[in-house]
Amino acid sequence: MLNQWKEAERPQEEDLVARLKAAREKLEDQQLKIKEHKLPVLVLVEGWGTAGKGHLIGQMIRNIDPRFFKVVSMQAPTEEEKRRPFLYRHFANIPEAGKFCFLDSGWMNDIMRGRFYDGMDDQEYADRIESVKRFERQLTDNGYLVVKLFLHIGKKEQEKRINRLLLEKDTRWRVGKRDHWQNAHYDFCREAFDSYLKETNMPSAPWYIIDAKSKKWTELQALEILTEGIEVALSNNAMAVPILQNVFPMEKMPLLSEIELDKRLDEATYKSQLKRLQKRLGELHNRLYRKKVPVIIAYEGWDAAGKGGNIKRITGALDPRGYEVHPIASPEPHEKARHYLWRFWTRLPKTGHIAIFDRTWYGRVMVERLEGFCSENDWKRAYNEINEFEKELCDWGAVVIKFWVQINKETQLERFTYRQNTLEKRWKITEEDWRNREKWDLYEEAVDEMIQKTSTAYAPWHILESVDKRYARIKALQIVIEELEKVL
Amino acid sequence: MLNQWKEAERPQEEDLVARLKAAREKLEDQQLKIKEHKLPVLVLVEGWGTAGKGHLIGQMIRNIDPRFFKVVSMQAPTEEEKRRPFLYRHFANIPEAGKFCFLDSGWMNDIMRGRFYDGMDDQEYADRIESVKRFERQLTDNGYLVVKLFLHIGKKEQEKRINRLLLEKDTRWRVGKRDHWQNAHYDFCREAFDSYLKETNMPSAPWYIIDAKSKKWTELQALEILTEGIEVALSNNAMAVPILQNVFPMEKMPLLSEIELDKRLDEATYKSQLKRLQKRLGELHNRLYRKKVPVIIAYEGWDAAGKGGNIKRITGALDPRGYEVHPIASPEPHEKARHYLWRFWTRLPKTGHIAIFDRTWYGRVMVERLEGFCSENDWKRAYNEINEFEKELCDWGAVVIKFWVQINKETQLERFTYRQNTLEKRWKITEEDWRNREKWDLYEEAVDEMIQKTSTAYAPWHILESVDKRYARIKALQIVIEELEKVL
Repeated sequence: MLNQWKEAERPQEEDLVARLKAAREKLEDQQLKIKEHKLPVLVLVEGWGTAGKGHLIGQMIRNIDPRFFKVVSMQAPTEEEKRRPFLYRHFANIPEAGKFCFLDSGWMNDIMRGRFYDGMDDQEYADRIESVKRFERQLTDNGYLVVKLFLHIGKKEQEKRINRLLLEKDTRWRVGKRDHWQNAHYDFCREAFDSYLKETNMPSAPWYIIDAKSKKWTELQALEILTEGIEVALSNNAMAVPILQNVFPMEKMPLLSEIELDKRLDEATYKSQLKRLQKRLGELHNRLYRKKVPVIIAYEGWDAAGKGGNIKRITGALDPRGYEVHPIASPEPHEKARHYLWRFWTRLPKTGHIAIFDRTWYGRVMVERLEGFCSENDWKRAYNEINEFEKELCDWGAVVIKFWVQINKETQLERFTYRQNTLEKRWKITEEDWRNREKWDLYEEAVDEMIQKTSTAYAPWHILESVDKRYARIKALQIVIEELEKVL
Repeated sequence: MLNQWKEAERPQEEDLVARLKAAREKLEDQQLKIKEHKLPVLVLVEGWGTAGKGHLIGQMIRNIDPRFFKVVSMQAPTEEEKRRPFLYRHFANIPEAGKFCFLDSGWMNDIMRGRFYDGMDDQEYADRIESVKRFERQLTDNGYLVVKLFLHIGKKEQEKRINRLLLEKDTRWRVGKRDHWQNAHYDFCREAFDSYLKETNMPSAPWYIIDAKSKKWTELQALEILTEGIEVALSNNAMAVPILQNVFPMEKMPLLSEIELDKRLDEATYKSQLKRLQKRLGELHNRLYRKKVPVIIAYEGWDAAGKGGNIKRITGALDPRGYEVHPIASPEPHEKARHYLWRFWTRLPKTGHIAIFDRTWYGRVMVERLEGFCSENDWKRAYNEINEFEKELCDWGAVVIKFWVQINKETQLERFTYRQNTLEKRWKITEEDWRNREKWDLYEEAVDEMIQKTSTAYAPWHILESVDKRYARIKALQIVIEELEKVL
C-alpha cells in the first residue's frame, strides 16, 4: 500500500481553507446524527513518528462536543497491561454507541513495536495479524464504524522535523530514541508498515494513507475521509453479514437429553473428597500464581441448578488475593452500548489470577437469542465470535474451563417450590424464574446448539450433573484440578 | 484454512435425511424471494479432483426452477479465451439479478492450474490473488451474494475414487492425468490450496470447506450454507459500503474550465496531416495485430462534440478485420440486471484487436449519477472500481486510450441549432439532448470529478479540444499513434 501510494496534490490555499471549513461543519453536523443512530465510531490514527498524530486528533475533536468523544493516547503497555492478552487494552477502549473514540496509535503500533524492538518472530507476527483481523471484523460486523488512518511522511521530512524539535528545549522531550531509530531505518520500517497495511486492509475497515506533510492538509484529508465514512455508515441499518464457517477443532459433545442425571455421592465420601481436592486446588493456586498462568472458569446452567454452591466449593480452596468472582446480570446501559463481549474483555484476570464468571458471554446465544435482545444474524454470528474470543484467551496462555450445570425439569420444580416456601430462600426466586421455566424446551434447544458449536478442543464445555449437588461439586473440583495440572 | 479445518461429524442417517429434506425445501422457497428481491447469487464450487463438484451441483439445482439458474462447467481456457484478460470469462458468467449461477470450478481452479502445471511464478500469483480479491469485492459491494464452497477429501479417499472410476469402462474417461498428479502430490497441493483459501477469505465472501466424503452429506452441508447465506443477503437492502482510498498513481489534469478551446487547423494542413497520420496508424495496426497487443479506445464528450466524426478518422485507417466500434446506449434489461461493468467486460477485444467505445463505462459517474440511476454510494465507489477495471486491462497488456471530447456551451448550441434546421441531420438531435444541455453545469462538475479521479498513470484521460473538429481529429490520431509506438 505505502509502496504504491502516491500523494494527492495539495489544493491551493484558498480551496483548502474552504474545503476545511466545509468538512469541519459537516463533522459538527454529523455528531448528532451519530448520537441519534447510536453509531459507535472508532478512529485509529497510526503513522510515522513526528507525523503529527496527536496534533491531528487535537484538530478533529475541536469540531465535536466533549460529551461525544474520548481520546486515548496509547503508550507502550504498562507492566499491568502486559499481564493481559494483547487485545485487552484495545478492546477496553472501544467507544459506546453514538460516540467517537480517537486513538493516538493502537494495535498497529503495538505490533510494529514488537517487530522492531522486542524481537517478535514471524509466527507471533502472523498470529497477531490474525487477531487484529478478527478484532476489526468483530467490530464492523457488530455495527462499528472503524476508520483507520496512516499518517505518512518521507524520510527527509521526518529528519527535518526531528531536528527542528531538538532545537528548542520545550520540544526536545518529544523526540524519543525510537524516532531516531525509525529515521535511520526508514526503508526497513516502510516495508514493515507496508506489509502490515496490506495484510489488514479489509473492505469493511480499509486503510487510508494520509499525506502528512502539512498540518491543514492533513486535517482536511482526515476529515473528508471520516465524514464520508460516517455518511456511508449512517445510511445502513442493522446490516446482516455472512455467518462464517467454524475453523476451530471441536470436541464431540452429548445433547442435554442424553446426559444421565442419576449420579450421586453419599455424604461421607463427599466430605472426604471435598477436603482432599480443596487442599490440592489450594496448592495448585499457589503454583499458578507463581508461574503466572491466568485461569478463567465460566459457569452456565439452569436456574436453581446449584451454580452458586458449586462456585463456593471452588473459591473455598483459593487465596482471596488471587481470584475474583464476577456475577453477571443484565448489562448496564454503558455495557449495552458496546460490543457484547466488552464487559467480559474488561473483566479478564491478570496472569496468575483466577476469574470465575457466574453466568457469562454465552448469554448472547441463550437469553439474548430467546428474548429477541439481538437479531438472528447477531446470535448466529456469536458462536464464531465467542470461539475467537476464547481462542485469544488460550493463545495468551489462559486455562479456560466452562461448566454447564445440568438438572432436569422436575428437580428445578422441587427447588423452586422449596425456595418459595422457605422464608430465607425466597429472595432467590422471582417471577422471571417461573417465566423462564415455561420456556424450558426452547432454552434446551439453544443450549444444545451452544454446546455443540462452542465446544472447541481448546475450551470445551464440561457437564456437571447436579441433581445431586455434591456429585457436581466434586466433579467440578476434579476437572479444575485436572486442567490446571496439565499446564503446571 | 484447510490445515486447521476439522470435519464436522456426519449426522445419523435419519437426522441427515430429515435435514436434507428441510434444506431442499428451504432453497425451493428461497428461489422466488431471490427473484423478488432481484438478488444475484453466484455459487462457486471448487475442490479436489474427484471430490464430486459436478454431482453436488446436479443435486442442488434439482430444487430450483430452470428459469432461475444456469450452470457453468469451467474447462481450461480455450485458445480464444486465452486471448482475453484472466477475469474475462469469469466476469462474463456472473448471474443476472434474481438468478443463480453455479460454477463447477472457476478462478481458483484457473490459478491453481497455472501454479501446478503452467509455471505461474510468485509475482504473477500475487497479482492474480489481488485481481480475485478485487473482483469478488466488486461483486459483493454491488449487491451480489458470492458463496464459495471448497469440497475436501483426503488423500486415501481420492486414491480410492480414482481407482474405482478406472475399474469401469464407462467411468474411466472421467479420470484425467491431473487427478493422478494431484493425488501423487497431495500434500503439496493441500498447501497451495490452503494458501489460496486463506488469502482470498474475505468476510463478505468467505470460504466454506465441505467434507465431501459422502454425497448426501456433501449436499446437506452445501445446501445449509447456501440457504443461510441467502437468508442473510435477503435481509439487507441496498447496503452502502466504505469508499476505498485510491491506490493508483494519478496524472495531474486540468479542469474543463481551464482548457483553451481556440485551437484551430486550416483545411490544407488538416488534409495533409490526416493522410500522413492515417498511413502511419495503418502500419501500426498491422504490427499490433502480429504482436497481439490489444487496444481499447474510449470516447466520452458533450453531445455534438464530434465524437462520431473523430472515430471515423481513426477507423478510416484500420483494417476492418482487426477492430470493432461499440456504440453504447442505455443498457438493455439483461445488461441492467448485472454489474454495470459486465457489458464492457464482455465487449473486450481479443489480443491484437482494437475495440473503440463510443461512450463507455463512465456513464456510471455521469448520467447514472446525475439521473439517480444508481445510489450515491454506487457512483462514489465507481471511480475505484473503474480504475481497477482499467488496471486489469493494462496488466493484461492492453493499451487503454481515453478521450474526452471538449467543446463549450456556445458551440453546442450552434451545432444543435444546425442539426435542428438541417433535414438530414435532424435525427441526430432529440428532446433529451436539449434536456441534458440544461444540466450543463452539473455535468461539468461530474466530468471534472471523473477526470480528476480516473486519470491514472496507466490510463489517463486525453482532452480533445473540438470547437475545431479538424484539430481534434488530428490530435486524436497523434495520441493513438504515440501510445501505440510506446509498446510496439
